[in-house]
Amino acid sequence: MTILKRADAEGIAHLTLNMPEKLNALSDAMIARFHALLDKIADDPTVKVVIVSGAGKAFCAGHDLGEMRAKDAEALKDLFDRCAALMLAIHALPQPIIAQVHGIATAAGCQLVATCDLAVAAEDTRFGVNGVNIGLFCSTPMVALTRNIGRKAAFEMLTTGRFISAEEAVTMGLVNKAVPPDMLQQKTRELAAMIAAKRTAAVKLGKETFYRQADMDVASAYEFAGDAMVRNMAIPDTQEGIAAFLEKRAPKWD
Amino acid sequence: MTILKRADAEGIAHLTLNMPEKLNALSDAMIARFHALLDKIADDPTVKVVIVSGAGKAFCAGHDLGEMRAKDAEALKDLFDRCAALMLAIHALPQPIIAQVHGIATAAGCQLVATCDLAVAAEDTRFGVNGVNIGLFCSTPMVALTRNIGRKAAFEMLTTGRFISAEEAVTMGLVNKAVPPDMLQQKTRELAAMIAAKRTAAVKLGKETFYRQADMDVASAYEFAGDAMVRNMAIPDTQEGIAAFLEKRAPKWD
Amino acid sequence: MTILKRADAEGIAHLTLNMPEKLNALSDAMIARFHALLDKIADDPTVKVVIVSGAGKAFCAGHDLGEMRAKDAEALKDLFDRCAALMLAIHALPQPIIAQVHGIATAAGCQLVATCDLAVAAEDTRFGVNGVNIGLFCSTPMVALTRNIGRKAAFEMLTTGRFISAEEAVTMGLVNKAVPPDMLQQKTRELAAMIAAKRTAAVKLGKETFYRQADMDVASAYEFAGDAMVRNMAIPDTQEGIAAFLEKRAPKWD
Repeated sequence: MTILKRADAEGIAHLTLNMPEKLNALSDAMIARFHALLDKIADDPTVKVVIVSGAGKAFCAGHDLGEMRAKDAEALKDLFDRCAALMLAIHALPQPIIAQVHGIATAAGCQLVATCDLAVAAEDTRFGVNGVNIGLFCSTPMVALTRNIGRKAAFEMLTTGRFISAEEAVTMGLVNKAVPPDMLQQKTRELAAMIAAKRTAAVKLGKETFYRQADMDVASAYEFAGDAMVRNMAIPDTQEGIAAFLEKRAPKWD
Repeated sequence: MTILKRADAEGIAHLTLNMPEKLNALSDAMIARFHALLDKIADDPTVKVVIVSGAGKAFCAGHDLGEMRAKDAEALKDLFDRCAALMLAIHALPQPIIAQVHGIATAAGCQLVATCDLAVAAEDTRFGVNGVNIGLFCSTPMVALTRNIGRKAAFEMLTTGRFISAEEAVTMGLVNKAVPPDMLQQKTRELAAMIAAKRTAAVKLGKETFYRQADMDVASAYEFAGDAMVRNMAIPDTQEGIAAFLEKRAPKWD
Repeated sequence: MTILKRADAEGIAHLTLNMPEKLNALSDAMIARFHALLDKIADDPTVKVVIVSGAGKAFCAGHDLGEMRAKDAEALKDLFDRCAALMLAIHALPQPIIAQVHGIATAAGCQLVATCDLAVAAEDTRFGVNGVNIGLFCSTPMVALTRNIGRKAAFEMLTTGRFISAEEAVTMGLVNKAVPPDMLQQKTRELAAMIAAKRTAAVKLGKETFYRQADMDVASAYEFAGDAMVRNMAIPDTQEGIAAFLEKRAPKWD
């Protein structure tokens, strides 16, 4: 049984973290397999959107503490480098990636939710960056969390280890929506399908621009985004899309 | 009939995008006229606050696609440069500028709402960055949008093309408030009048500082803002304002 | 009577701004005493969390305008430098600091709330950056405010001088929670006690990382936070915390 399953259908690659007995911990093997799959998907023209979910009762409970405990400082630094590289690969992935979240999403599991472009959660999901409870502050999850939610809320979660509900996660901006648990798969798939129906080249260009401009001052961001618009306009499908819109007809794509 | 009307009253310059048959598209002519008017207003001591609204059934539906379609890459780059320059001119304008939004605000029209310092919307307004639907990702609107609302919400709007309601726009932080459609003009004017009643020099100094410090690290931001405070204290009206406050009397201004 | 009282109990240092007749203004003396106390607390291993509140009917009403009025430009620059240094010292303080807010928190008082790591407010508290009403735009408070709440909301507060309620402050992200006035002290203490119960070294490392990574691009932030994780793992208490977690027993700390 593979630790990270991939199943493709209708342009959507569904990845399932599949170590339920370890609450889908981001172990060395899981990080390696996840990153390798993203590299493969990045070059796969048949994939338009990616969903990531977890098998068993949790989405993901963070790193594998048993594994971590055995590492020396050098090996730990290497682990956090590889984990950060995975998170940056999610942003660099051309296709949008949606976290389909249930059960618990804690520590690096909460970081994964924050890092994904979009997130849909079952209403009974609990989110936490609770490493502080065992003396290990969630400093790397913090990087993703603070780029999703406000400072006061992030600081509280990080220092108290308090779990928040899916409803709170929506209000804070950590996830896009909370849905009844038995609707989670369907609602996530509907969101994925809506995006998969768009022109892939445009979405790819847009996602790349999204994260690149985020760390720039506003003038540089406009310079960069303006270039993206020019490149987007040069795509034949875009020309047809605009023509169809102006002529009030459906575009002839595909 | 001019494509962008200006009407001044009581220190408030009310600009009306006036190409209702084109849903007030930001055409080459509209951008030029808008930017030229802002340049004029910037030097006009009688104007304390600016309101921008749209004539007809929409606030603004973005760029003029017919015009854009005819442009080559160089002309498109020039268009996005001019549009970005307009957005930066809104931030550089000494006076606060309020978007009075109704109907629809889409693509660069939604960008305009995000860029204005403040926004009041009719409750039935719909907002979208929906270029993705015709294969043209709203990359430049994204620059303004992501500096107003959270990442997850912005990414969803950009990749799904979903329209959001005025109520959602308030919750997300894209507009300050939503009001009944028949109250839109009055409520926007009340907000403008409240700001117009303040000391203009202080507001001007404050607005300049607002956008300048936003892209700085916190220590540099304090350095810059501290200088602004010193300059603000040197204004005679401020000295009188403080004196009046301490003496529990109305300030003798004007 | 000292202008800033300190009372320690159970690892919590409770500071009380104690110039009620001046609404606890951040006067020269108050800034100096506050900064000096923070320097002392920073090196005090018995303090795990700090609470700051105000004596009398207000939390803090900002700077001492009477004092400010008498200063020339050089003295004013020095004041804002010292005030900024105090705010940066709050972020640099190893221990989390919680604002316990009641009555009013205006101008630099609102800045203090925004600057503290966490804030609990009585439900009837009113917040404002209302210097604009006397011609003195709250440019330095803006630096802290805009790093807590959205742009549109911040711009409105700054240019209209409008007061917001504790409930609005929660929604915007300026404070963590609003509680009934007669529960304020207890609820703030509960939050402080929850954090005080964590491993101090981990919290200290986490808080330092929190503010350092905030102004970095995401890749640099991960580099920095990864180093923090490695250092955190090297703490013996963390090793014991992880061991206890894996062995499903309570950690043997202290």
